[in-house]
Amino acid sequence: MIKYKRSNRIAELTRIFIENPRTTYQLSFFSDKFQVAKSSVSEDITILEEYFEEQGLGSIVSSAGAAGGVKYIPRMRVEEARKWMLTALEKLAVAERILPGGYLYMSDLLGEPAFISGVGRIFSEAFADSGADMILTVETKGIPIALATAKYLNIPVVVARRDSKVTEGTTVSVNYVSGTSHRIQTMSLARRSIGQYRKAIILDDFMKAGGTTKGMINLLQEFQSECVGVGVLMEMSEPSNKLVSDYISLAKLTKVDELNKRIFAELGSFFI
Amino acid sequence: MIKYKRSNRIAELTRIFIENPRTTYQLSFFSDKFQVAKSSVSEDITILEEYFEEQGLGSIVSSAGAAGGVKYIPRMRVEEARKWMLTALEKLAVAERILPGGYLYMSDLLGEPAFISGVGRIFSEAFADSGADMILTVETKGIPIALATAKYLNIPVVVARRDSKVTEGTTVSVNYVSGTSHRIQTMSLARRSIGQYRKAIILDDFMKAGGTTKGMINLLQEFQSECVGVGVLMEMSEPSNKLVSDYISLAKLTKVDELNKRIFAELGSFFI
Repeated sequence: MIKYKRSNRIAELTRIFIENPRTTYQLSFFSDKFQVAKSSVSEDITILEEYFEEQGLGSIVSSAGAAGGVKYIPRMRVEEARKWMLTALEKLAVAERILPGGYLYMSDLLGEPAFISGVGRIFSEAFADSGADMILTVETKGIPIALATAKYLNIPVVVARRDSKVTEGTTVSVNYVSGTSHRIQTMSLARRSIGQYRKAIILDDFMKAGGTTKGMINLLQEFQSECVGVGVLMEMSEPSNKLVSDYISLAKLTKVDELNKRIFAELGSFFI
Repeated sequence: MIKYKRSNRIAELTRIFIENPRTTYQLSFFSDKFQVAKSSVSEDITILEEYFEEQGLGSIVSSAGAAGGVKYIPRMRVEEARKWMLTALEKLAVAERILPGGYLYMSDLLGEPAFISGVGRIFSEAFADSGADMILTVETKGIPIALATAKYLNIPVVVARRDSKVTEGTTVSVNYVSGTSHRIQTMSLARRSIGQYRKAIILDDFMKAGGTTKGMINLLQEFQSECVGVGVLMEMSEPSNKLVSDYISLAKLTKVDELNKRIFAELGSFFI
């Protein structure tokens, strides 16, 4: 059996906290695992706590009582988020991404583990104190963003579907006008997917007029649930009067010049 | 500025490796960051390496030369995977999940960060030596599984769509017969999503007859790409003559007794 020297205990604590953010562990879980006194575990955690705080990585929070324990709350400094997003913008705002109709191809980035982890990290910082207990998104490209954010916030993701599927059981549907297609569309949510009175963050990859987001807010109302925050990776400046007023964006597409193959993008409202 | 004592260095190395599996770092990156000699960093890494190996968490691999460095390759012991999957089966094989038509409701679990991380960890172990440089899945419920696996393997995810979307640009489509709906369906992939001659793992949540998987294999051929592995979270025993012969499953649904509300499930072929 492995002997848990301090360096091994530090490694194991770091691994467990990083892999399981916002998950509460009893001190006895660690002292049993490491075969050391709880006071030694407390010392180890204090070392980590000071380190995480100093690096702006978040805090390790202790709570007393029978249900007490320790958990790691990841945080991210806004300067760091801004720096990350500026680098991401250089990848996003390239002429090769222009699609017919002035759309932007982003699917490759939304499948890159490091990119979506970064986006998730920033959204988890933006909504760290929202009190949300779930994330709602709509298929398909919002899913990676929602999952990456959910990992840091340790809350589940619920995915609205564009039509109702047999594998979802009974569903509730709403109609909405998509700002992209200007057509009436339907989205649906499994009856059993949301318990009542839950607080949701709505996340998506792209916002033009905000019709899809508005549809998701209406869907939440059907489940007597509340929207406590809206975040999109990329918003378009136009139309400026969106159907949703309260949201944050990480990036803003100010102009797509299809003819001359030029894109103009800037940091989104989260950084303003 | 923080002083990097050994315990802080161990914490930081663990954090970086766990958050960025299969990513190569130069020793000088760490020695610059920690302001210590490379020999000290090497000692730190040896401590971590021994610990990870002993715990079955994987290995830290060093490579020499100009492009050399160190990277963390996560692994998982099969006994641990089996234990995890048996616990997961208890959540999956419950009568409340039975839907009309004998389908199984799994969407809630596919939105739970801890559940999908576990599934991704097992698939990353199953395909650790596949040489894959991408994961292909089809919307919608395969996406969480593909992303979670991609994180551990550090390769991108490409998502085939059920129809072609304006935001995907030029697409290639194939028709396939879904074993679930018994109808001819279409899936498409953005022309720019896959470079040529790439090796793909195909992942999905559910396999009945294997029609969808076969469609994805055909799609890869259109891109001169090769399928180096197929994995599904749950397969149905029936029909036994599937359209795909070479695949692994983590769980097998042997019977859904809709009338008496009973489910029979067992470990999938990966564990046999």
